[in-house]
This record gives sequence, structure tokens and C-alpha cells, in this order.
Amino acid sequence: MSGVEESLTALLQQLRGTGFTDLGFARVDTDREARQGAPEAIMAEGKTPEEIEAIARVLLDEGAGSVLVTRADADARAALRRAAPEAEEHERARLAWVARSVPESRGLVTIVSGGTGDGPVVHEARVRAQLLGTEVVVHEDAGVAGLHRLAPAVEDLRRADCVIVVAGWDAALASVVGGLVAAPVIGVPASTGYGAAFGGVSALLSMLTSCAAGVAVVNIDDGFGAGTIAARIARAAAS
Amino acid sequence: MSGVEESLTALLQQLRGTGFTDLGFARVDTDREARQGAPEAIMAEGKTPEEIEAIARVLLDEGAGSVLVTRADADARAALRRAAPEAEEHERARLAWVARSVPESRGLVTIVSGGTGDGPVVHEARVRAQLLGTEVVVHEDAGVAGLHRLAPAVEDLRRADCVIVVAGWDAALASVVGGLVAAPVIGVPASTGYGAAFGGVSALLSMLTSCAAGVAVVNIDDGFGAGTIAARIARAAAS
Amino acid sequence: MSGVEESLTALLQQLRGTGFTDLGFARVDTDREARQGAPEAIMAEGKTPEEIEAIARVLLDEGAGSVLVTRADADARAALRRAAPEAEEHERARLAWVARSVPESRGLVTIVSGGTGDGPVVHEARVRAQLLGTEVVVHEDAGVAGLHRLAPAVEDLRRADCVIVVAGWDAALASVVGGLVAAPVIGVPASTGYGAAFGGVSALLSMLTSCAAGVAVVNIDDGFGAGTIAARIARAAAS
Amino acid sequence: MSGVEESLTALLQQLRGTGFTDLGFARVDTDREARQGAPEAIMAEGKTPEEIEAIARVLLDEGAGSVLVTRADADARAALRRAAPEAEEHERARLAWVARSVPESRGLVTIVSGGTGDGPVVHEARVRAQLLGTEVVVHEDAGVAGLHRLAPAVEDLRRADCVIVVAGWDAALASVVGGLVAAPVIGVPASTGYGAAFGGVSALLSMLTSCAAGVAVVNIDDGFGAGTIAARIARAAAS
Amino acid sequence: MSGVEESLTALLQQLRGTGFTDLGFARVDTDREARQGAPEAIMAEGKTPEEIEAIARVLLDEGAGSVLVTRADADARAALRRAAPEAEEHERARLAWVARSVPESRGLVTIVSGGTGDGPVVHEARVRAQLLGTEVVVHEDAGVAGLHRLAPAVEDLRRADCVIVVAGWDAALASVVGGLVAAPVIGVPASTGYGAAFGGVSALLSMLTSCAAGVAVVNIDDGFGAGTIAARIARAAAS
Amino acid sequence: MSGVEESLTALLQQLRGTGFTDLGFARVDTDREARQGAPEAIMAEGKTPEEIEAIARVLLDEGAGSVLVTRADADARAALRRAAPEAEEHERARLAWVARSVPESRGLVTIVSGGTGDGPVVHEARVRAQLLGTEVVVHEDAGVAGLHRLAPAVEDLRRADCVIVVAGWDAALASVVGGLVAAPVIGVPASTGYGAAFGGVSALLSMLTSCAAGVAVVNIDDGFGAGTIAARIARAAAS
Amino acid sequence: MSGVEESLTALLQQLRGTGFTDLGFARVDTDREARQGAPEAIMAEGKTPEEIEAIARVLLDEGAGSVLVTRADADARAALRRAAPEAEEHERARLAWVARSVPESRGLVTIVSGGTGDGPVVHEARVRAQLLGTEVVVHEDAGVAGLHRLAPAVEDLRRADCVIVVAGWDAALASVVGGLVAAPVIGVPASTGYGAAFGGVSALLSMLTSCAAGVAVVNIDDGFGAGTIAARIARAAAS
Amino acid sequence: MSGVEESLTALLQQLRGTGFTDLGFARVDTDREARQGAPEAIMAEGKTPEEIEAIARVLLDEGAGSVLVTRADADARAALRRAAPEAEEHERARLAWVARSVPESRGLVTIVSGGTGDGPVVHEARVRAQLLGTEVVVHEDAGVAGLHRLAPAVEDLRRADCVIVVAGWDAALASVVGGLVAAPVIGVPASTGYGAAFGGVSALLSMLTSCAAGVAVVNIDDGFGAGTIAARIARAAAS
Repeated sequence: MSGVEESLTALLQQLRGTGFTDLGFARVDTDREARQGAPEAIMAEGKTPEEIEAIARVLLDEGAGSVLVTRADADARAALRRAAPEAEEHERARLAWVARSVPESRGLVTIVSGGTGDGPVVHEARVRAQLLGTEVVVHEDAGVAGLHRLAPAVEDLRRADCVIVVAGWDAALASVVGGLVAAPVIGVPASTGYGAAFGGVSALLSMLTSCAAGVAVVNIDDGFGAGTIAARIARAAAS
Repeated sequence: MSGVEESLTALLQQLRGTGFTDLGFARVDTDREARQGAPEAIMAEGKTPEEIEAIARVLLDEGAGSVLVTRADADARAALRRAAPEAEEHERARLAWVARSVPESRGLVTIVSGGTGDGPVVHEARVRAQLLGTEVVVHEDAGVAGLHRLAPAVEDLRRADCVIVVAGWDAALASVVGGLVAAPVIGVPASTGYGAAFGGVSALLSMLTSCAAGVAVVNIDDGFGAGTIAARIARAAAS
Repeated sequence: MSGVEESLTALLQQLRGTGFTDLGFARVDTDREARQGAPEAIMAEGKTPEEIEAIARVLLDEGAGSVLVTRADADARAALRRAAPEAEEHERARLAWVARSVPESRGLVTIVSGGTGDGPVVHEARVRAQLLGTEVVVHEDAGVAGLHRLAPAVEDLRRADCVIVVAGWDAALASVVGGLVAAPVIGVPASTGYGAAFGGVSALLSMLTSCAAGVAVVNIDDGFGAGTIAARIARAAAS
Repeated sequence: MSGVEESLTALLQQLRGTGFTDLGFARVDTDREARQGAPEAIMAEGKTPEEIEAIARVLLDEGAGSVLVTRADADARAALRRAAPEAEEHERARLAWVARSVPESRGLVTIVSGGTGDGPVVHEARVRAQLLGTEVVVHEDAGVAGLHRLAPAVEDLRRADCVIVVAGWDAALASVVGGLVAAPVIGVPASTGYGAAFGGVSALLSMLTSCAAGVAVVNIDDGFGAGTIAARIARAAAS
Repeated sequence: MSGVEESLTALLQQLRGTGFTDLGFARVDTDREARQGAPEAIMAEGKTPEEIEAIARVLLDEGAGSVLVTRADADARAALRRAAPEAEEHERARLAWVARSVPESRGLVTIVSGGTGDGPVVHEARVRAQLLGTEVVVHEDAGVAGLHRLAPAVEDLRRADCVIVVAGWDAALASVVGGLVAAPVIGVPASTGYGAAFGGVSALLSMLTSCAAGVAVVNIDDGFGAGTIAARIARAAAS
Repeated sequence: MSGVEESLTALLQQLRGTGFTDLGFARVDTDREARQGAPEAIMAEGKTPEEIEAIARVLLDEGAGSVLVTRADADARAALRRAAPEAEEHERARLAWVARSVPESRGLVTIVSGGTGDGPVVHEARVRAQLLGTEVVVHEDAGVAGLHRLAPAVEDLRRADCVIVVAGWDAALASVVGGLVAAPVIGVPASTGYGAAFGGVSALLSMLTSCAAGVAVVNIDDGFGAGTIAARIARAAAS
Repeated sequence: MSGVEESLTALLQQLRGTGFTDLGFARVDTDREARQGAPEAIMAEGKTPEEIEAIARVLLDEGAGSVLVTRADADARAALRRAAPEAEEHERARLAWVARSVPESRGLVTIVSGGTGDGPVVHEARVRAQLLGTEVVVHEDAGVAGLHRLAPAVEDLRRADCVIVVAGWDAALASVVGGLVAAPVIGVPASTGYGAAFGGVSALLSMLTSCAAGVAVVNIDDGFGAGTIAARIARAAAS
Repeated sequence: MSGVEESLTALLQQLRGTGFTDLGFARVDTDREARQGAPEAIMAEGKTPEEIEAIARVLLDEGAGSVLVTRADADARAALRRAAPEAEEHERARLAWVARSVPESRGLVTIVSGGTGDGPVVHEARVRAQLLGTEVVVHEDAGVAGLHRLAPAVEDLRRADCVIVVAGWDAALASVVGGLVAAPVIGVPASTGYGAAFGGVSALLSMLTSCAAGVAVVNIDDGFGAGTIAARIARAAAS
């Protein structure tokens, strides 16, 4: 056995059972909130309601400040309510969550979206960022086909610590906003659109090749990821 | 704040609330008809019937000459009828529309399609162009596997101010028509076909690489977009 | 033999040798200008200089109003000069052309581009449209990352009979322009950009899914095609 | 060892060294002409001139009726001439071949192409089919953007035992020809074209989804494969 | 108007109403059987039962020797039975057909498939080829993972005038068969398989790049197209 | 007929009916277990319950040590129970199997997975490997977003004769594990994930380009294939 | 003209010539540094040395704090030196830059890369971030195939205000780092790797689907974009 | 700081400088041979000759049993010779290596390839496996278009502890071999082929969907990876 191997093995053995709870089908990372400031969330797809309920119970028992279930159908949302009767939900955004101890709010995240159909992604980002302890302002349906509809958002864009742009189709909104603001911009390509929108691929490519520097991108429809990084950026900027 | 920024901010603030109605989930561009000669339309997918009804009401209240709902299932079509009981519909093309004040007809758009299955796209283009104030003639199922079936369309192709070709599969019709006529040709790749038709991608690529110059292309199945640009071209040519 | 077959065969035999000149390696469509108002052009790639010279001679001998050679390297441009010593050229746009009898100018085409690197495509579109008999105004490097750079183009966009937008990267310019003007917009995705720009594919997808209706698209880098259809639209609108 | 395994092993051991010559870097299938009526050919790409020469010598020594080297640059063509000084070549089609004993010609293959740039593929198909013992007639540059240019080909299309269509770009010619003739049609997508032609992919997809039944397709630029199957079809039909 | 245009227009006008019946939503090519030896077939997808019934009636009234409805669900198959009570059907292959006057059988088509799941495509090819007047022999589930399972097919492969290989997954069967037989081979990539089989794309690419020359390919799952061209080849070879 | 052809034909005729049972729709490879040490399995998709039952009966009648039905819905699982009432099943992994004579266990396969949603693939690999006669240890939900969750697996990774990594999303776990262990690693990309996970394609590409050497990959979700090769490796290593 | 149109037109006309310098081929956005805190940079590809020199002169004349030329070959770098003799350069990263007035350094950006070949992208990010006024620490070749090589970076990762991960191949490093740190992580997929690395596409997809939340991604090889957003994040966090 | 974080940080700090040598541009993993039985290799692409030489010197100084440089042009190979004058090389396979202390040979790896053009990949796999201490036997050009050419390989396939199949085009050889042998099969898709071979993608997909179980796949042209895993498998099986 090599020296590196010995050291790694020693460490990993020392970590056995530390910082997570083993449910067999899941190893719940109960240390994540302490380590990274954001508790592990539960993506409901591919999990049974029973598994969701069990994971949620572990997180809450271990003292999670909040628990968020994403991509959650009615059964998945009910599963969280069984674990925590005070849970809230957002049906269209397929979310359920319980907030037991959210950090004091710090920083501002402004979310703008291209169209009404982007709503579910917008709200996933909003709830995640709020649970991590930031203020969030939302401006929906401000796509560039009518630039004047962006007007009411300008002030909130200017004062944001981080901006999230949610847009499907050609996602041109990301470049327009990216050219206006000095704050970091997180783009979320949305799967809205048909035909050559290819389920969000066109929006993704568009955002990745935005002619405005200062834009970084997360996965298609990944409001959760956008909310996470935006909250980190905004909270740090405001502290 | 830079000079450009100041000017842009000033303008955008001045535009706050101008030219659109804010429903929260939607900012309805009530200025579009005045600005571009074509009222905003409502794509039903991703919107609830309640949202569709509310948007339609705003457009009609603000004096839209017509309202068109595309990709509309039965619920979405019913939503428009609630807002405007005189609304018409085309079930197979998933359309509902109300025409209160259509511009006087000007110019001719001729639509040819490759096969019977392209019908929904054909009729979306037709209704849109008619609502914008053009005459439309339709020739369906004139694909090149039997060139003689194109014969009855020749006269209408020759006299058109703009031609729309709707075709799935290999969309060879676009090149054949593009080589015959002197008018601008708008190609609409249709999602008809299976296997390597890839939901309209093959038709799209085929139309984009048409060996006939003078062909421009819209999104897969986008009868709405084709009808919009064709009507603009035809009306201008005939004025 | 079926009746249709007999008729088609009769026609096609009657057309033998009509309207084109057969060079063996090429059948030069000398009828195209009469039939469609635009002479056949010569794409140099894949042809030897000798072939280009021969085709150009045929077109000129048969009375073409102009001859345009696209995607032409130095040898290809020299080939045209051998056929027509008065030929002009644009090195960066890889063009050579000779204009013997251009139609009287009618209508206005305004071309805007996203960046300096789109220049070759811009000029291919410009020359083609001019040879077909339209006035062309060009505004380069007006991308949306600095919206104020679009300002000088606004008047020319408003008064255009047809607008061409040339843009690579995310091609967001197409949607912004498409939302401002009432004239038909022809988008030309450019191969400028690296990485996820994928040689113009992202720009193509972006333009096809533009959230502004009234935009149609041609092939990547196809200034020639855009110039052709734009000139047709503009001339018809201005007549 | 299972029974099947034993039998297979017995056979394969019995075949050791039968029907091929082992050069180490290549096992030349000297049996193929007897087995399938068409001698093995040599694709030059990825082989050194020395390897090409050695393979050609083996084939000729073993009595091949002909040897064809495809995708051959000048060095590769010279390699064949070293093995067989009477070898012929076609530079643009990157071919070299020697014909020692070509079967008596039987059947007719008609080749039509969409444009001048498809020439190399046309001639690869032609030479291969001729070496296998068929008559071949060629009509180049008959693309559908000017249908009348197809007229001189009609008679040869009607009387062909098999038709080969070579076309790049949108390859619409395949559907037009496929709708006219009763003979089998073999489509060869060519890599001619730029932008969304994607090196022949658009032509490939177009031919695969041809709206005319009776069309089958070979690999992009695969004149060799098309010549092989077309000659088989034509010879059988004419016997 | 140019000379070519005049001639084309004259012809096309002369063809008005010739050789097809116009149903509005469809122009039924009643001339196809006379022209190409194979009657037009009806692809059910994208057509209503009423449309299918109407098209079938036209074809039968105009004397079609047979009518084949492909990709037909129960309603589509019932539609044919309304038009022709003697219609037969194959549920798994989603076919319905009526054979009133099939040409005398000529030639042999041998079909081999890679696996049981390819059955629907196999039978679509078989029925089509039989309706066009050929004998068909079928060997299913002969994939190369157990080469001995190909043994019973060898004799029928040797004596075939044309071979059809239907295979999903990696479609290796096409190359193995293509290396054994001297007859033309038509490959049909099947959509069987999961994951990286990509709905038949892997099989398609594999067949297109088969290392055996003499293989041509049709669309994914296109038993109809394979049956059409195979019957043409086999009938010609046997006459 | 060539010598090779004669020999091959002789062999294949000699194999007629040897080593498989012909059910018409299927040729069951009853020789496979003797030839390759692993009995043929039944992929349920694309087969009717009747076909599954019949194939299972043949395999069992011919003495298969075990029969495994993969991708099996409730009907398919019931079909196996009809053929073998003692059959076991795993609903979520869509498996049913009967083990009549499993080889004595030899070697150890350790399976680690990235997340709970990968469970079905994990268990398909586990059952297959167990039926082939290996010990299997499973560690689920050990993804790299929390490296400490990998700790409990370290000892089982070290002592494994072969490691299987099942992971969706970015499949980073494959590289991390591949960098730790000296045993061969088989990666199974899972279709878990949304958006740019593209149904397992991202995981597939990630595993194929793993920066750790010593990783080989099977098809997306192909627990069966991974279990097969891993068992072969582990059994050989332990013998 | 609509009200919105009037207002927009008024504004845009008022902006004519404001905030940029028009060179004909380029409209240099001299306002960007004031507006967004980062001066416009010059991507050399697609621009002639003369154009680069001219743009650089404008930027410097208008008071840019720094000028950076990216993707610059030797000629492009020389062009900058002509405009500013004090310019520095990094040959392998294809950079040239001149720093006249860089903001006081604030915040820390830590860059880690997967391999030596990622160097050019690393240094593009580093220089850009430094020019925007941040401290940058670099750890190269810390890929996960040997996790211990990441050890020296841990401290710098912990204290960073923003982390940049540059990685090609499978880019697993992004997830490992993303799971360790609480700071925002910007991933830059690099085009290093061959085969299924697909020029950075696999790394891009891997980063987009990272199982660690808190990672956002820029274009392939876009060190410039990463440096821009990272500097914004780090400066805000440290202020 | 969380408990997990503390532990991980402690470990990683303890590992600082352990098991690798930091050259700034590279952290050479000198522990890998001890940890995984295979020394780190040097992929030359993207590295300067000076970097290659320096890395090689470190590896040799630290006692590496062998050093292998892959994808090495003449300069890269010369760099290794400077570090170790006894270095050997294989020009066509772009390899250079020095073997100071290769493990005693154990186990047999049999490599078969589809065609002559696959040679470079074959030899990369061969040299790597030999340097790790296995016997290797090679059979080139045994593609399935002439199955009898596989005959001489049968005995070596049967007695192999692991089989490597290198094939481009449709890679059908993988399934044929995979159906014959009981040993694990590692497929290496090669980039040989043109058109729809797509640089090895078709071969890759074909191997991933091989109808023979027991095949796992490495990256396109990755002889190095195949040699690594095959040697591990073979050595373990033979011990």
C-alpha cells in the first residue's frame, strides 16, 4: 500500500458514519449545512414518497434550518407534510419546503424572466434563495421582444447584488441584462419553447455564448442551482 | 454612473407602465400592434386557462384588433371564449381567435404543403396571415413525390406576393418551389415524419440548405411566425 | 407508361437544351434571371478556377446582368477577372463580381451586425442585394452588449423595407431588432464565436427561436441568400 | 466447450490461411471476388504507400480482375502504378485503378448529381460500377433549383436498371428523381455545402426521409458503396 | 416570363387534375401505380380515420391493385375495413391492407432480423414486398451474438434476389450478412434498444458505415421503404 | 462458389438447429451458458408476455442454471412466474429471475452509486452478477458532492476484484473511484438527472473521458451488461 | 408611431454617438468601464492587426484603465504593442495586455485546474481577473485522478471569495471542489482531451450537471468570461 | 467549520507535498504506481517538449518502472530520449517509452482489429499492456466483412484472459467477438472511417449497444486506457 493510499484510507475510515445518516438507499449529508452554509435538498424525481419522507425526517432531526423538496408531484409534497406538517408548497413550481431556522436575510437577488411560462423555474430559484437567507425581487415576462417591459425592473437590477435571468427560447434577455448591469448575472436556460428550442438547449447555448461578459450559466430549468449560487454571491457581497 | 447608463435608466424609468399591462405573471405588450402592426399573440402552452383568459381580456380591453391563441388545447380555447364569446377555433390546428377589427386585406400569400399531416401548421399560418390582413390561398399535399400534384398550385404561386412552404420529412418541396417562383419564399419545417425525420430537424436542415436562393426559414411547426412575416411582406408588396 | 409520366416526359424532352448551357461538369441555368429576376451565382468552393471562368463566360455571353462569385479565394477571383477584366472584388468577404446591367435601384435594405468579425457575411449580403437592384445601408458592430451602439441604426431600421441582421455568438441582436421594427427581418447566423458557439449553430438556433415574430432565417454565413430574399422583399415593397 | 463452440472452432481453424493473404498489417481477402462478385478495394486513407503497393500486388498476384484504390492522394496513386504500371487514375476523384479482366458489361446505371462540386463522388461511383461490369451514364449539375436542367437526363433515367443520385446541400434531387422513376434509386449524400449542410449530414437526413419510396442511401461521399450495390442491381436486372 | 417558365407553366396547367384526386386535405396520387409500379400507400399517423377511409376509397375506386395503411392504430385499421371489408391486418406491425390485384409473384426477398423486438418492422417490409409481387422468406432473431442462429438462414440468403436486414442496437448483423452474400442488401435500422441505441440512431450509423460494401440503408423502422425497393430489385432480377 | 463460401456454408448447414430452439419469433440460444458461462437473458421490452413465457420455458427446459428477465413490467414478471412459480422479483429494478443452479460464488464485485435514483440500475447489476456466481456488496448514494459519504465503501472498494460505479448527472464518482482503486472499474452511466443530463448522455461522456485510467464503460442504464462483465472479471481473478 | 416607439426612438437618437467611437468596422464601447466596471476587451480572432491596433488606440485614448487582447496570435499581440509599447503578453495563453490604471486589488480568486494542458485557459482567467482588481492564486494540475494533488490548494480554496475550476475531459474536479467549498464556484470547461471529449463538450455537460450545487459555468475555454464574473463576485464580497 | 470539513482539511494538509512532485505547471503523481500498480503516463498533446522532458525526469527520478508518452509527435518523442536515452518509440502510433523495471509478465491479452488503419490504436494498447506486465498477441485486419480472416485469431481469443477489440466504422467486430468468447472484452472505438463514421462516434455507439453482453468500452482511440484495464484484468486472472 502506498503512502498516499494509507493516509486516504485512514482518513476515510475515520470518517465512517461521520456527517451523514445511512438509510441504505440514501446517505443523507447532514453535515452539508455546516460545511457549505446550505442544507442538502431533496430532488423528488426517482425517489418514492416513503424515501422522501425518511430523508426529510433525518434532515429535520439532525437540525436542518430548512428542507426543500424540488420537482415534487403531489405525492412527494404530501410526503414532506407528513414529516413536517407546517410545510409550505408551490404547486406549479413543484416545490414543498419547511423553514425552521432561516439565516437572517442579507443581500438582494433580482430575478427577471422572459415569459410567463418560465414561472416554475423562477419560483424554484426564489424559494431556494430565500431559504438561504437573501431578499429576492421578481420581475416576470420581461422578454426583449418588447424592451419597454423591462423598464420596471431597471431599478431592481441596478441595486441587486446578484441577478438571475430565467429565459427559454433564444434567451436573448441574458445578453441584454448582462450588458446593462455591473452585478454578476446567473443565467438559467428554461425548457420553454418548441421546435428548435430543443427543450432548453437553444437557450443554454445562447446564454453560454452571451456577448455580454459577466454571465455564468446553470443547468436547464435549474432554478435550485441558480438560487444557491446567487444567494451565496449576494450574501457575501452584502456582509 | 456612466452617461449611457444615466440616459438608459432615465428612458426606461420614463417607460415604466407605458405600453403594457402588468398582470404579475405577465406583462402584456399592448403597444405591439401600434408599434409593429401585429398584436401580441398568446401561446397557450405553459399557461393556465385563467392566465390565458386574463391576457386575452387585457388585449381586448386595450383595443387589440384581434387576439390569437396558438397551441391551444380545449381548455385554452374555452378560456378565450370566456373572454370573447364570439371567438372562433380550429381544433386540429389547436387555434382559437377573435377578430374584432382586421386590417383591410392587401396582398396575396400562397401556402403549399407537402402532405396531409402538415395541416395544423398550414392553418396556423393561414389564420395568422388573415388576421394581419392578407388574402391567403392554400394548396395542401403537393409534395414532390408526385410533381403533377403541384400543378393546380402553379397559378397561385406565380401571382403570390409571398409564398409559404410547409413540409416535413425531407422538405424537398421548398427547393422545388423556390426554383420556380420569383416571390420571397418562407419555409416552415414541419415535425411530420418518423425516424430520421427527428421531429422536423431534417426538414429544417433541408430548408436551410435549399439549393434555391430566396428561401428563408422559421422555427419547426411555426406557422404563426411564417404567417406573421409573410403577411408583412405581402402587404408591403401590394401597397 | 402512365398519363402523367407521358406528359412529364414530353415536357422534359421539349426542354432539352432549353434555358441552360451544358458544359459537361455544369449545366449553367441561363434562364434564371428571366425566370426569377436574379441571375445564377457561382459558389467557388469545390470548383476549379477553369470551371469558374467557363461558367462566368457562359453567363456573360448569355447576357447576365451581373455575375457574382462567392466564397472565392484569390485564384477564383482571378478566374472571374479573366472572363471579365472589369470585375471588382472584396478580399475579406471572398467575393468577386461584375455588374453589366444592374436593375434600377428600388427599396432599402438595412443591414446590422453584431460584431466586427461578422464583416465578411455583411458584405456578401450587401453586394448581392446591390447587384439585384436595391439600396443598402450597413451598420456594423451594433451588438446588444452595449445597446447604445444600436442608436445610430435606428433611423435606418425604421425606414428599411427589409432588415438583415448578421450575428454570431448568441445572436441576441435578432430578437432586439425584431422587437423594434415593423419590416420583415432576415437573420443570418454567423460562424463567429468559439466553444459553444459551435460554428454558428448557437446563433442559428437562437434566431430560429427568436421571441420576436417576424424573423426568418437563412443558412449559417449565407449572406448571399439573405441578400437575395431581402432584395426581392425590398424591391416589391418599394414598387 | 459447448457443441456450437466446438463446431465453430473446428471450422475457423480449417479456414486458417484460406482465402486471404496475411501481410501482418493486413489480411487481404483474396476470396471476395469469387464469393461476392466484387474484388476487395483499397481505401488509401490510413495506409502508407508501401502498404497500398503490397496489398495491390497480392490482389493482382491472386488474380483479381481489377484493383481500385479510393481516397488516394498522389502518393497512393503512385503506389498502385508501381504495382501495376498500366494503372489509370482520376485526380479530382482521388482514384487509381487497374482493370485486368472486367466482366462483360451488363445493365445500365444512370448517375445524376445536384451540382458541379459533387463530381468526385460521381466519378468514384462511375468507375466502381464500370469495373464491376455495367454501363454507366452520367448527368452532372441537374439540381432541382432549375428543374429544366434535369430534362436531358429523363431518357437515361427511364431506361436505367438502377439510378444513383449524388447530391449535397438539401439533396432534394433524390425525392424528385425518386418520384419519377420505377427503378431502384441509390442516394449518395455528398459533403458539398457549408453551414447547416454539416458536411453532408443534412443531405443524408434528407435522403433517408425522402418522401419518395424506393430510395436507399449509402454513407456520405460513398461513391464506392453506391457503385457496388448499383452494379449488382443493374447486372442482375439485365441478365 | 422566361421560356422555361412558360413551358413549365404550360405543362403544369395541362396536368391540372390529371393523375390525382383532390380531397382538399389530400391529393391522392392515383397515377403512381401506373408510373412506378407501386400504388401510393397511406401512413396513418397524422391523419384522422375519416381521412384514411376517404383516401382508401379513392385509391380503390381508381383501381389500385392494393391499398396498404402503415403505422395504423386500431381506429385507422377499422377505417380501412369500412372502405374495404375484406381488409386484413397485423396488429403488432400496425398494418392493414387490402389486396385486390397483386402482380404475379416474381423474385425472392429474404428478410433476416436481429431480435424478436424487430418483428413489427420485419412484417411491414414483408407485407409491402408481397403486395408488390415478390416471394418473401423471413428469419427472425438471428443476431450475431450467437452466429449459429444465422445458420438456418444461409440457404435463403444465398438464393435471394435481394436481402433485407432489420436490426436495432448495434446492427452488426448488416455487416456480417453483407460480407456473406452477393445479392444487394437493404438495411433497416430498427428503434429497438435503449440508452445509447438512441431510438435507432446507432443502428442507422452502424449500417451506413458497414464495412461490407453492397449495403444501402433506409430510414429507421422503415419496413415500408425497404419492402418497396427490395421488391423492385427482386422483381427485376427475376424477370 | 468460392472455397471460403463452401466451407462457411457447409459449417452453417451443419449447425442448423444446433444450439438453439426456434420459436419462430425467437431463436433461443440454449448453448450460450455452455459457450460463455452466462445464460441468455430476456429483455422484456418489445416482447409480449406470451413470448417471454415461451422463451423462459425453453431456457429452463434446456437446463439453464438461471433465467433473468430485465426491464420487465408487472405483466412480464408474471409471465416468468407462470413458467417458474419460484421466480423472485425486484419491482423497482423491473427484474424477475429464477435461480435453479447458480455457480459456486467466486470473487467480489463492489458496486457504488452516486444517488438514490440510481437504485434500479444498481440492483440490475447486482442480481445479474450474483446469478453468474459472485459475491456482491452495494454502497448506494456515495456521490462526490459529499466525499465523506464514500468513506464506508473504502474497505469494500479495496478488496474488490472488480468495481462497478453507477452514476448519473456528471458521473464524477467514476473518476474519483478510478483514482483510488487498483481493480478494474466498470462504469454504468445512469439516466438520472434532468436538463443537460440528457438522459444519461452527460454521464456517459464523462465516464468515457474519465481522467482515471482503468475505467471501461457500458451502455446507459445497462446494469445487466455491467454485472456480466464484472462477474467474469471477478470470478477469473478469484480462481 | 406608437408611444413606446416614439420614446425608444427619442432615446436612441439622443444616444447617437454617445459612449462609443465609430470606426466603421467597429463601434468601440468606451462607456463600458464606467457602466460595468470592466473595460471592453478585444477578441483578436476575426479581426485584422490593423483593426486591433485601431480599437486599442481608441480605448486607450478614451482613458481605459487597461486593454486586454484575447485569442491573439503573434501579429495581434504586435498590434497592441504598436498602440502601447509597454504592453505585456503571454504567448501560450495567446494574450496581450496593457495595464494603465488597474483598480486597487480587492478580494481573492483561487483558480484550480485539472491538468497541464488547461494552462492557457487558466492564465486568461488569471490576467483578466487581475486587471479587474483582484488577487489571484493558481493551482494547476490538481485533477481528481490523484486526489492528494488537490491538498496544497485546500487552504486557498477555503479562503477564496470565488473559485474558478478549469478542467477538460470529464471535468470531475468541478464537483469535487464544489462539494468542498462554501464560496461560489465558476466552472470553465476546457477543450483539452480527445475522442469523446468532443472539444470540451463533455466537460461542459459535466459541469452543467455537477452534483454539487453552487457551481455556474461559462463557455468552453472562456477564461475571459470566468475572470470577469469571478472578479466581480470577489470584489463585492471583499468590500 | 463542520466536523467533516475539519477532518478533510486535516487530511489534505497532511498530504501536502506527499506523493507528488510539484513542477508548477504539473503535479506529477509519483505515488500512482504504488497505489494502482500502473505509473502515470504523459499525454503529449497540449504539453511543450520541455514540460514532457521535465515530467519524465521526475517520474524516472522517483523510480517509475516505466514511462510512456502517448500522442507524441517527433519533438515529444525526442524530449523523452533526452530524459532517457534508451527510450524506444513507435512513430505511427505516436509513442515513446522507456522500460526500466517492468513487472514479470502474467496473463494474456489478445488484441484484434478491424482494419489496417486501426494500427496506431492497436499498438498503443499493446505497448501499454506490455509495460504493465502482460503478454500480448495481436491480430490485425480481421473485420467481419470477411469472417474467415478471423480464423487465425480464434485460438488466441479462446486462451486470452482479456480481449481487446479495436475497430472503426461500424465496429461490428466487437459483437462478433463478444459472442464467441467467455473472457471479458474491452472495445476501443477507432476514428477510422469517413462520413457517417463521425470520427469514431458510430463505432463508439455500436460498441456501447453491442448485442453481446460482456463488452465494455473505452474512449475513442484510447488504446492507452484499454491496455491499462486489460492488463489489470489479465494479470489478476492469471495470478
